[in-house]
Amino acid sequence: MPTTPSLTVRRKHDRQSFDPAALEAILDEGMIAHVALVRDRLPVVLPFLYAVGDLEDGAGRRLLLHGSTGGGLFLDAGTNGLPVSVAVTHIDGLVYARSLNDSSANYRSAMVFGRATPVPIGLRQKALWIVGDHLMPGRREEVREISQKELAATQVLSLPLDDASVKIRFAGVGEAAEDGEDHGVWAGVLPLSIRADAPIRSELTETSDPSSAAVDRLIRRLDDLADTRRRALESLLTSRDSSALQ
Amino acid sequence: MPTTPSLTVRRKHDRQSFDPAALEAILDEGMIAHVALVRDRLPVVLPFLYAVGDLEDGAGRRLLLHGSTGGGLFLDAGTNGLPVSVAVTHIDGLVYARSLNDSSANYRSAMVFGRATPVPIGLRQKALWIVGDHLMPGRREEVREISQKELAATQVLSLPLDDASVKIRFAGVGEAAEDGEDHGVWAGVLPLSIRADAPIRSELTETSDPSSAAVDRLIRRLDDLADTRRRALESLLTSRDSSALQ
Repeated sequence: MPTTPSLTVRRKHDRQSFDPAALEAILDEGMIAHVALVRDRLPVVLPFLYAVGDLEDGAGRRLLLHGSTGGGLFLDAGTNGLPVSVAVTHIDGLVYARSLNDSSANYRSAMVFGRATPVPIGLRQKALWIVGDHLMPGRREEVREISQKELAATQVLSLPLDDASVKIRFAGVGEAAEDGEDHGVWAGVLPLSIRADAPIRSELTETSDPSSAAVDRLIRRLDDLADTRRRALESLLTSRDSSALQ
Repeated sequence: MPTTPSLTVRRKHDRQSFDPAALEAILDEGMIAHVALVRDRLPVVLPFLYAVGDLEDGAGRRLLLHGSTGGGLFLDAGTNGLPVSVAVTHIDGLVYARSLNDSSANYRSAMVFGRATPVPIGLRQKALWIVGDHLMPGRREEVREISQKELAATQVLSLPLDDASVKIRFAGVGEAAEDGEDHGVWAGVLPLSIRADAPIRSELTETSDPSSAAVDRLIRRLDDLADTRRRALESLLTSRDSSALQ
């Protein structure tokens, strides 16, 4: 049974890639996946927390979608699973060209197609650890284990990564000396990124620490990702071929 | 012809709302919409730049999806349009509880269902201005007009807003004095937001200004949104009933 619609990228082919490393990199930095399914022959899209990991069941690294046994997607999936399309998108910047038409966004988008199937109860704890480690790195060492009752009330859907592609725009303004535009108008890129603000301690926390080691680790990680991306863009834009990229 | 699948929110009903003001607020802060459609009976989800606005054609405020005449969704839509499901999601924070199971994310998600139809050529310039003003407020005053040739190569899909809902989690850690958890473990919320970094001027820009007024405006807007949300959360968490919210 086919699980992939005809999906040729119809424009900007050069922005598309099937490189597994590029796919993993995009998925590694995201927190929310948008999952599309068909219900009553109509499309539905829902946001999910997710992670990528290996359940050590021989199936290799998979996309794991986190939810509750009572959630809509999980009821639709039943035990046989259902075809889904999953997108994880990062907006990395706005590209201010000298016309609205040439203006654009820098982005990275990963698309995965396949049949999402429930993770069996025996692998569910491992799946939840993977999701937890992805969203809150290091937190598992600070908190108690997941109880059997909690495990029973949680569901994770799993999806292979072998039918996937990524699309990336990572470039400056498309411009040339003789492009006919008014170069007196400021043009450039405004980098955007997800950043953490100072954490807010819960009222019943019996320590005066402003945060935990895991929280500090995520704050640094988000700063590092943003700084690394900015340096890479600056380096690209000052290289010889920058004006050829759009 | 129905355009809405059966869509009862099956859990956390209290997080769902049909308030138009809440819908507009979520859409107003977003840049990327994830659009699901059915192709070959299978789901496809694609990211789009978008805006909300009134084309002054009597149809009221609509969701406008920006693309190219050669893009997949736009070919699928033809002239009669096609049923879509659109989600715009903001992740506002990670909620570090004292177990992975109780940990969560603060988020705001808007869902819109309906038939997306192409904006006719006569209204397309207005539609593109609305998208431009949404993504790059004030930029229209700094750049040249859109040319007829550019208009012909661009497409915008329009979608009514009357079949929509929002789902929001905006709260601290669910905790109580007698909840059996170890309160020596730090718990709390790590606020997240999209922030702008310092802009990068294009090589051929003939001014030494570090940015334009429109760019500065967006930087301030993103900072203001993040600061306002943080203050609202702090205020919520120090109010009498905070521990009742999860």
